[in-house]
Amino acid sequence: MKILFIGDVVGEPGRKTVAEYLPKLKVKYHPTFTIVNGENAAAGKGITEKIYRQFLELGVQIITMGNHTWDNKDIFEFIDHAKYLIRPANFPENNPGKGIVYVKINSFELAVINLQGRTFLPPIDCPFQKAEQLVNEAKKRTPYIFVDFHAEATSEKQAMGWFLDGRVSAVVGTHTHVQTADNRVLPGGTAFITDVGMTGIYDSILGVNKETVLRKFLTNLPSRFDVPKHGRTQLCGVVVEINDKTGLAENIERMILNDDQGLFN
Amino acid sequence: MKILFIGDVVGEPGRKTVAEYLPKLKVKYHPTFTIVNGENAAAGKGITEKIYRQFLELGVQIITMGNHTWDNKDIFEFIDHAKYLIRPANFPENNPGKGIVYVKINSFELAVINLQGRTFLPPIDCPFQKAEQLVNEAKKRTPYIFVDFHAEATSEKQAMGWFLDGRVSAVVGTHTHVQTADNRVLPGGTAFITDVGMTGIYDSILGVNKETVLRKFLTNLPSRFDVPKHGRTQLCGVVVEINDKTGLAENIERMILNDDQGLFN
Amino acid sequence: MKILFIGDVVGEPGRKTVAEYLPKLKVKYHPTFTIVNGENAAAGKGITEKIYRQFLELGVQIITMGNHTWDNKDIFEFIDHAKYLIRPANFPENNPGKGIVYVKINSFELAVINLQGRTFLPPIDCPFQKAEQLVNEAKKRTPYIFVDFHAEATSEKQAMGWFLDGRVSAVVGTHTHVQTADNRVLPGGTAFITDVGMTGIYDSILGVNKETVLRKFLTNLPSRFDVPKHGRTQLCGVVVEINDKTGLAENIERMILNDDQGLFN
Amino acid sequence: MKILFIGDVVGEPGRKTVAEYLPKLKVKYHPTFTIVNGENAAAGKGITEKIYRQFLELGVQIITMGNHTWDNKDIFEFIDHAKYLIRPANFPENNPGKGIVYVKINSFELAVINLQGRTFLPPIDCPFQKAEQLVNEAKKRTPYIFVDFHAEATSEKQAMGWFLDGRVSAVVGTHTHVQTADNRVLPGGTAFITDVGMTGIYDSILGVNKETVLRKFLTNLPSRFDVPKHGRTQLCGVVVEINDKTGLAENIERMILNDDQGLFN
Ligand SMILES: [Fe+2]
Ligand SMILES: [Fe+2]
Ligand SMILES: [Fe+2]
Ligand SMILES: [Fe+2]
Ligand SMILES: [Fe+2]
Ligand SMILES: [Fe+2]
Ligand SMILES: [Fe+2]
Ligand SMILES: [Fe+2]
Repeated sequence: MKILFIGDVVGEPGRKTVAEYLPKLKVKYHPTFTIVNGENAAAGKGITEKIYRQFLELGVQIITMGNHTWDNKDIFEFIDHAKYLIRPANFPENNPGKGIVYVKINSFELAVINLQGRTFLPPIDCPFQKAEQLVNEAKKRTPYIFVDFHAEATSEKQAMGWFLDGRVSAVVGTHTHVQTADNRVLPGGTAFITDVGMTGIYDSILGVNKETVLRKFLTNLPSRFDVPKHGRTQLCGVVVEINDKTGLAENIERMILNDDQGLFN
Repeated sequence: MKILFIGDVVGEPGRKTVAEYLPKLKVKYHPTFTIVNGENAAAGKGITEKIYRQFLELGVQIITMGNHTWDNKDIFEFIDHAKYLIRPANFPENNPGKGIVYVKINSFELAVINLQGRTFLPPIDCPFQKAEQLVNEAKKRTPYIFVDFHAEATSEKQAMGWFLDGRVSAVVGTHTHVQTADNRVLPGGTAFITDVGMTGIYDSILGVNKETVLRKFLTNLPSRFDVPKHGRTQLCGVVVEINDKTGLAENIERMILNDDQGLFN
Repeated sequence: MKILFIGDVVGEPGRKTVAEYLPKLKVKYHPTFTIVNGENAAAGKGITEKIYRQFLELGVQIITMGNHTWDNKDIFEFIDHAKYLIRPANFPENNPGKGIVYVKINSFELAVINLQGRTFLPPIDCPFQKAEQLVNEAKKRTPYIFVDFHAEATSEKQAMGWFLDGRVSAVVGTHTHVQTADNRVLPGGTAFITDVGMTGIYDSILGVNKETVLRKFLTNLPSRFDVPKHGRTQLCGVVVEINDKTGLAENIERMILNDDQGLFN
Repeated sequence: MKILFIGDVVGEPGRKTVAEYLPKLKVKYHPTFTIVNGENAAAGKGITEKIYRQFLELGVQIITMGNHTWDNKDIFEFIDHAKYLIRPANFPENNPGKGIVYVKINSFELAVINLQGRTFLPPIDCPFQKAEQLVNEAKKRTPYIFVDFHAEATSEKQAMGWFLDGRVSAVVGTHTHVQTADNRVLPGGTAFITDVGMTGIYDSILGVNKETVLRKFLTNLPSRFDVPKHGRTQLCGVVVEINDKTGLAENIERMILNDDQGLFN
């Protein structure tokens, strides 16, 4: 069984890039499930119902989120009935939405869990305790468990990988928008990568207009971070191969598709 | 002209790994200059004079540092006469040591600049203003300028890359201890990578005993972060190829050498 | 019924100041209960069993803690049988110790709760959710509930005051080591002050050697923060008057006792 | 010579409170200079030209700012010709505006310096180095120097007090919006207080609608912090008495004027 995961899709250029490459990726990898992190899909800030539905129509089964979950107010209108969208499970319990979802395709039931780190990010509930609880819960239903751990610090992400090693199929990091080259199957059988990276404008800073970000660093004056309308794009993703019987990973392959590397012919 | 840069060397396992691979890397790449980030070389915390000298004896020309510069008290005894060691140039002006060094090999004079970011790190002087000043200074002497930008946030590192694009040979990030896969030559001709990654124990969290780091995340109790004495190791580095005439980069290749990928025969 | 609360006692000078003033304060106010924040009692960092016992012998009934709880390793040896010592209740559940204690004097049973904020402090469990739970629990036993909220941000502390207003006898802030002048009884009947302030060396920075702290700000170099051995001291505290029937506050008086103000004759 | 300083004025309720009390305070104290921190004067976020002019018309001579300086876009239109408005002097040098102003009344020329801390606040230039430079500069013109140090951490503010003790007339802290009770003349002759406190709605969290702030702490969901339109208000200020010959302080008196304390008859 294979899972294709596409990292933080930023704005319209990111969405178009998904639309363009996804059919080719499906042909190449035949993933059973496709997951996309959509926390930046709406102009870099959150997601709308329309975009959520577009992802589903493109053949994405699950959309995960992160610290930008609530940036677009539209979310409050549709999250309660957005069956395939999850936000970090360790957000306060009074928050709308959910952090785990079970999706069945053929004979495979996949549990997808979204968690958020706390280092350099707002203080929420403990992601490790929440992981412990949800993984134990999911284990009762299925051996196929995929975790999107949305976090800033490399230490916290690797800690989560080791914490869940042997207990879930994969732990992939998101949020820093830069793909790391440390993809591996940990000794216990869990696929891991510190960050999957960003899908969007290539000549940018994390998908955002580089002039606006640079201005912030140079002046500390208010700067409206916008997503460029035009420009070369990239797609960042991973493909995890999972043993049908054990639910453990056999391989994790990463891909960056842009003008400089990895382009399909 | 080629530069080999090896990322944050962590403790004795990291130093041994450098000693083991460096001769092979020199045979393979024939770098004109070899630079090592040594901020974690002494048991993960700082550097000693003995270790500094060992690096030079191994054929390293320049040692860069970072936020762990002052962790080992030995530094205060030898930094003033450690000609080839630099610490972040944007540390307060009253600090010992220096942040730029010029080294001449054959007809090539290389300027190496060490800077530190401020996002999620202590407030020091502005790295961008300091870069502006030092790069302008170095430009008067040489077209070969190499920058080790030690920073946490991917946005700050990419901002520095774009800020210096076309003005220096390379900007490589250090500090997060995880190699990123975004190595590229920016449009202006500056080689860039968000993070070179860590050299040390492979089955660890950033080179540190994974149990001690995990315990911190799970309990928030005090935890002594130690470097494991034994275990499989990895080396992370980049090789930058620079045009002899322009001083601009023609290529940046990254390497992770561990049991899972990239090992030499 | 009256409660005397003495703010963060820093090192030996702080302890001596408590020993000197407490008998006079008892004569003046006749408090039913005396509570001391002891997180800095052992040389500024944590507490020892010996110091804990000394506080009890001086006539203190309850000792509260904060972010320095685990600084002195001695704590791990005695916290499990230190009946009258509490540490923040919203520390991870796997931590030793407890965050609430009930103490009975005459016919009054007082519940004391220790909580810690998360703004500018390590990410732990939510202090508001934990407060909700513990206050509901305590309400079943007694109307006298005293909360020491150890936090950095004035906003978080005032938020806790309003959150618990009318439900507890008092919410007093600790941790910033500077007494605030905003003591009041909130409209619902809860006594509140943003910070009680520090007990220790007066000519210092928060009880710590001012040269060592200033050096840190000027150089960002490592600096060993020590408590001066000699010098003028101050005591910071509040006296809360509680209605015997309702458990609500009728008054909160603050005191700073040092050479410049408030000294007893 | 006397200086009246009024702490962070929050929104319309704060401005009305200044308008109401200032005439009475002038009658009572006869201040030579009146200074107001206006960083929150426009609905809690920044200041407009109209409000700036209103302060001057009310008899305020100097307006200081802080981390909210740029919140209201109007500032970029008028700061360059707003002679009596200063923003933190240690903002990046490329920023509009200035951080020091000299104002002459009768025979007294007063230098007012605005600085901002870096602990728990954005990384800007070093406030201590900038203070050193500006105080030395001002010393050449006048012995009367007043510093508004806008900072979060009590340690950083007290460090600035001791750093400048004996060199300036006064260092007063702003930003936490809660008045501290530690007003004193330091041994060298500099008046000091960690925070002057806030002028605005009394039954609030730092001048802001308490429900909106509490909601943020309870849910971490986006929350629009607004200033209540109605409600009881308070004014927080200090009066510093300065020796006409030496420029050093003889006294610093603090005031909180609200329904519970300090009201004039
Ligand atoms: Fe993102
Ligand atoms: Fe994110
Ligand atoms: Fe490092
Ligand atoms: Fe580092
Ligand atoms: Fe304390
Ligand atoms: Fe504390
Ligand atoms: Fe303010
Ligand atoms: Fe402020």
